[in-house]
Amino acid sequence: MANIRIGILGYGNLGRGVELACRANDDMELVAVFTRRDPASVVTLTGVESRHVDELPDFVDKIDVLVLGGGSATDLPEQTPAYAKLFNVVDSFDTHARIPEHFANVDAAAREAGKVAVISVGWDPGMFSVARVYANAILPQGADYTFWGRGVSQGHSDAIRRIPGVVDARQYTVPVPEALEAVRAGENPSLTTRQKHTRECFVAIEEGADAAAIERAIVEMPNYFADYDTTVTFVSAEELARDHAGLPHGGSVIRTGATGLEGQNKHVIEFKLDLDSNPEFTGSVLAACARAAYRMAQAGQTGCKTIFDIAPAMLSPLSPEELRAHML
Amino acid sequence: MANIRIGILGYGNLGRGVELACRANDDMELVAVFTRRDPASVVTLTGVESRHVDELPDFVDKIDVLVLGGGSATDLPEQTPAYAKLFNVVDSFDTHARIPEHFANVDAAAREAGKVAVISVGWDPGMFSVARVYANAILPQGADYTFWGRGVSQGHSDAIRRIPGVVDARQYTVPVPEALEAVRAGENPSLTTRQKHTRECFVAIEEGADAAAIERAIVEMPNYFADYDTTVTFVSAEELARDHAGLPHGGSVIRTGATGLEGQNKHVIEFKLDLDSNPEFTGSVLAACARAAYRMAQAGQTGCKTIFDIAPAMLSPLSPEELRAHML
Repeated sequence: MANIRIGILGYGNLGRGVELACRANDDMELVAVFTRRDPASVVTLTGVESRHVDELPDFVDKIDVLVLGGGSATDLPEQTPAYAKLFNVVDSFDTHARIPEHFANVDAAAREAGKVAVISVGWDPGMFSVARVYANAILPQGADYTFWGRGVSQGHSDAIRRIPGVVDARQYTVPVPEALEAVRAGENPSLTTRQKHTRECFVAIEEGADAAAIERAIVEMPNYFADYDTTVTFVSAEELARDHAGLPHGGSVIRTGATGLEGQNKHVIEFKLDLDSNPEFTGSVLAACARAAYRMAQAGQTGCKTIFDIAPAMLSPLSPEELRAHML
Repeated sequence: MANIRIGILGYGNLGRGVELACRANDDMELVAVFTRRDPASVVTLTGVESRHVDELPDFVDKIDVLVLGGGSATDLPEQTPAYAKLFNVVDSFDTHARIPEHFANVDAAAREAGKVAVISVGWDPGMFSVARVYANAILPQGADYTFWGRGVSQGHSDAIRRIPGVVDARQYTVPVPEALEAVRAGENPSLTTRQKHTRECFVAIEEGADAAAIERAIVEMPNYFADYDTTVTFVSAEELARDHAGLPHGGSVIRTGATGLEGQNKHVIEFKLDLDSNPEFTGSVLAACARAAYRMAQAGQTGCKTIFDIAPAMLSPLSPEELRAHML
């Protein structure tokens, strides 16, 4: 099988996840990791070489797909359109409200350069999104629910870390079991934000800091915590490092709908993820989408694509014949 | 929105399911139901007209997609290639072992006629298959599990009905809860047929029939029951009609896999269906695939397709812009 030559831009948790996914896929070859840091300071997990980002233009003929491991706030809005002028690219842009704008920018760049750019892949957006599209296409009359967790929200953990006196923090988003069960039972409940998820915070604070004030600052924080039942547990920095080092996540996309002459038959479609490592799973999705980007480019397609535009067979290392014989 | 003009060949449970799905989709118009019976004897649920199958060639310009509601044993191997010469078609061919052969026959016919034929859609094969492909593409190192039920197996119910002395029967396939939980917990168990599912049979027998002999004939029946823990409950024909009239089904496709430098991070992907009406849900999948067949044909594609070849956006009534704005 022809090797797909992959580059990774950005070597944080997600970049490492993509690196490991390349190793797990026999048809992929990771050429190099590109970083804004001094490459000599970036030692990769699998021993692949690190290069400075400024060297990327020299790799135009050496890389088939560049996977972007940057963040959605500032990195990807710049990087994805810029690098789509040179490479087929894949990103995990996840600012839902700005996806149409990001799509337009990336599409213009990729079309002009004759490249394929796959944006907003991972699990949400990504696999959760595609689960919603299938379920809505099958059951046009129904209701959608998304539950996240139990898992670490990095945005919420960061918000706690910004409170004065906080040394470190880890925030778990937890679905309310009763809400999840009511949805799964097809009861079609109307649920407020508070009824769907709780937030559990594990916080290490400076010696002498005002724990009560910090707890209040957390639970009353608008947007992040005020609309949720939030619990705060103070732990030592050592405990936090020991017991909360992982980045688990997951959740469920559920659509409930009805068919029948009188709508008497209920159906529940659920897509559920239970992930020990959010960045490694996300990196694995990005790698599969890099394969699809490569194949779409080989087939002469250009422009920006989302997971909705990718036929599932394009993601698989198996041939169409193998897929039909073994997976159908 | 342009109406997609649908025809249905075969008016059994599945044909009715497709009929109801056409009513539920605003962009579809059901033109007629076609039957091998006397059309005057076929009164449809929604009042759409019934026509004799021999009239189908007259509808070549009046129908965009013909949905085939026949069975996999004898109907579809003949009908799908035959009607792919005249129409874009969709079928639910589900004899897994014969799919490659069916694909080849249908592909040749559809290509020659310049039509699109979507085969083997429904939920298994169909949505379960596509769940397997996504999960395998994301987690190349892992194990696949499929559990069916709790739900009515028509094939097993029919097998019981063929035993002398049996008036009517209904067989439920039931996943073993402990097996399902072990898989969901990521324990990656090796499971025998017996450890995965049990079979519950509700049987009405003739007056004076030998219940013990019938029970033995069921539980010892090779292929169907001998490899399972099977329970037989004798009920009256009235009870069977009253309490077991529905055709519920469902199940779960689960892939468990690992990532990480040492494979230390476990992931569980589950796609789960809980369906009150197997034929109505299957009909709803066929209708969504009819939309995709229409669009692929409009785009100039020809030949046989499976759910693996269909970009998810093609199944949805929403535009690409709407999908990105609301579903991603």
